[in-house]
Amino acid sequence: MVESGAEVRYTTAERLPEDLRGADALFVWDFRCTGVEAAWLAADALQWVHVAGAGVDAVLFPALRDSDVVLTNSRGVFEGPIAEYVLGLVLTFAKDFAGTFAAQRERRWQHRETERIDGSAVVIAGTGPIGRAVARTLRSVGMRVEGIGRTRRDHDPDFGVVRGFDQLTRRLPHADFVVAASPLTERTEGMFNASTFAAMKPSARLINVGRGALVVTEDLVAALRDGVIAGAALDVFDTEPLPTSSPLWTMPAVLVSPHMSGDFVGSLPALAELFVDNYRCWLSGNPLRNVVDKRLGYVPTRASGG
Amino acid sequence: MVESGAEVRYTTAERLPEDLRGADALFVWDFRCTGVEAAWLAADALQWVHVAGAGVDAVLFPALRDSDVVLTNSRGVFEGPIAEYVLGLVLTFAKDFAGTFAAQRERRWQHRETERIDGSAVVIAGTGPIGRAVARTLRSVGMRVEGIGRTRRDHDPDFGVVRGFDQLTRRLPHADFVVAASPLTERTEGMFNASTFAAMKPSARLINVGRGALVVTEDLVAALRDGVIAGAALDVFDTEPLPTSSPLWTMPAVLVSPHMSGDFVGSLPALAELFVDNYRCWLSGNPLRNVVDKRLGYVPTRASGG
Repeated sequence: MVESGAEVRYTTAERLPEDLRGADALFVWDFRCTGVEAAWLAADALQWVHVAGAGVDAVLFPALRDSDVVLTNSRGVFEGPIAEYVLGLVLTFAKDFAGTFAAQRERRWQHRETERIDGSAVVIAGTGPIGRAVARTLRSVGMRVEGIGRTRRDHDPDFGVVRGFDQLTRRLPHADFVVAASPLTERTEGMFNASTFAAMKPSARLINVGRGALVVTEDLVAALRDGVIAGAALDVFDTEPLPTSSPLWTMPAVLVSPHMSGDFVGSLPALAELFVDNYRCWLSGNPLRNVVDKRLGYVPTRASGG
Repeated sequence: MVESGAEVRYTTAERLPEDLRGADALFVWDFRCTGVEAAWLAADALQWVHVAGAGVDAVLFPALRDSDVVLTNSRGVFEGPIAEYVLGLVLTFAKDFAGTFAAQRERRWQHRETERIDGSAVVIAGTGPIGRAVARTLRSVGMRVEGIGRTRRDHDPDFGVVRGFDQLTRRLPHADFVVAASPLTERTEGMFNASTFAAMKPSARLINVGRGALVVTEDLVAALRDGVIAGAALDVFDTEPLPTSSPLWTMPAVLVSPHMSGDFVGSLPALAELFVDNYRCWLSGNPLRNVVDKRLGYVPTRASGG
């Protein structure tokens, strides 16, 4: 569809400084790509950058932020899958499936009592579309959720109550599960650190489906090692792929997955379709969907303040 | 509470032929206990048998069925936990957590796309309280469920549609997940066999939280080995504990758990409380709760036909 009305260049981060010259729009397939900054001097005609991901932290840099170039993301593709994934991780902890798999490998019949999730409490950091989808899904199975976000709100349709980031440490002692689903910004970087872990229940588990750098990894390793918290399921890491030397791979009660919580069979066509829809808007001069507030670092949630 | 108004004898299956003599009521803690039949001649005063489980197949035998002794079960304790457990197993398959754990053990960063559960189809065999709780939970996260039970019903509050057992093979081709949650009776024994597996999608998974003997194990092993179906999560087995010689322990895409889907931290006190409540009814001459229809082999669901 795009090829019929435009000159399309398929390029790589390495060739971008050459291929970006004269281009009106840039579609970044790899949300981890940091190559746009290095090619920025060649962006002589660029009006629009679209990212095939939810988080734009890797793509965004000061010169892009300060320019007139519009940045859009792929909001709408990953929310539902990630919410299902988080629910699966919650149940994996509650029902101790890891223990069951381990016993099975040894042909060991080891009966245990496990945890109910009905009525258990979840603090979700991040009240954008992903945090909201997680909140709705966990509530639908009887969990008590609350949100931590930029804007305090008493009657939120998805969360019930949203409290400000400054209340995080005060709310963590109530949580059985803590879900990190914030975009990575100056405000959220390192929000899970020694002092926030110290506020959590020793029985609590952290689930990170946002960005690795929301968590101070060293502090997390210490908190897990010292029993400050009971476990962590990590789909994102400050360095990806996670280096084989990382202690996280082998710590008990740590589930490592390779940044895949939102990636379902069919997500690539869905991402392509979303871009094409936006391209149609752009061609016809209509407003683009999913425009990132480059100062905030994410797409503000309409009428809810993100 | 019971001890203050009655002579209480704590006994074992071995000592039951001696201790049952003169007893008015028998509380069977182990739902697997088959010792009541061997002690039956000593049941000279017995009026009531209560089982601390949902299925009464092991405890029930012809002479008990044909007697005036009332049999009650522990309906109300296990439904919610089992529904959560089944949802966890569904997500374990859909999100390939077993593959993720295996990659983690090898420090292997192996990105995959996984399945959505939203919109996928589930056939639940068994429309008693456990099947109903499973249906409600799976529907709440967007799965399309239908029930197979004794009585056909077009507008069921939990299932939407319930079809008769004779429709099982006709409905299986539509299912992504098949949940076995029936009581074990003459009608349901071996209902999952070579011919029902042949009706399932090659991509479908079987989840058994009912009784092992609902499934013909040999046929299941063959169906899994030959790719007739894609996987099975089994919490119950025709022989428990599952013998170490069973091929199920090591088959790929088979999850073995030790009959624990309903057992949560707090289930033992809940089971005791349920018995004490019923004991109060019995003392005061009020109708007992959870009376098993001994001919059917389970507690009929009120106004819904089980």
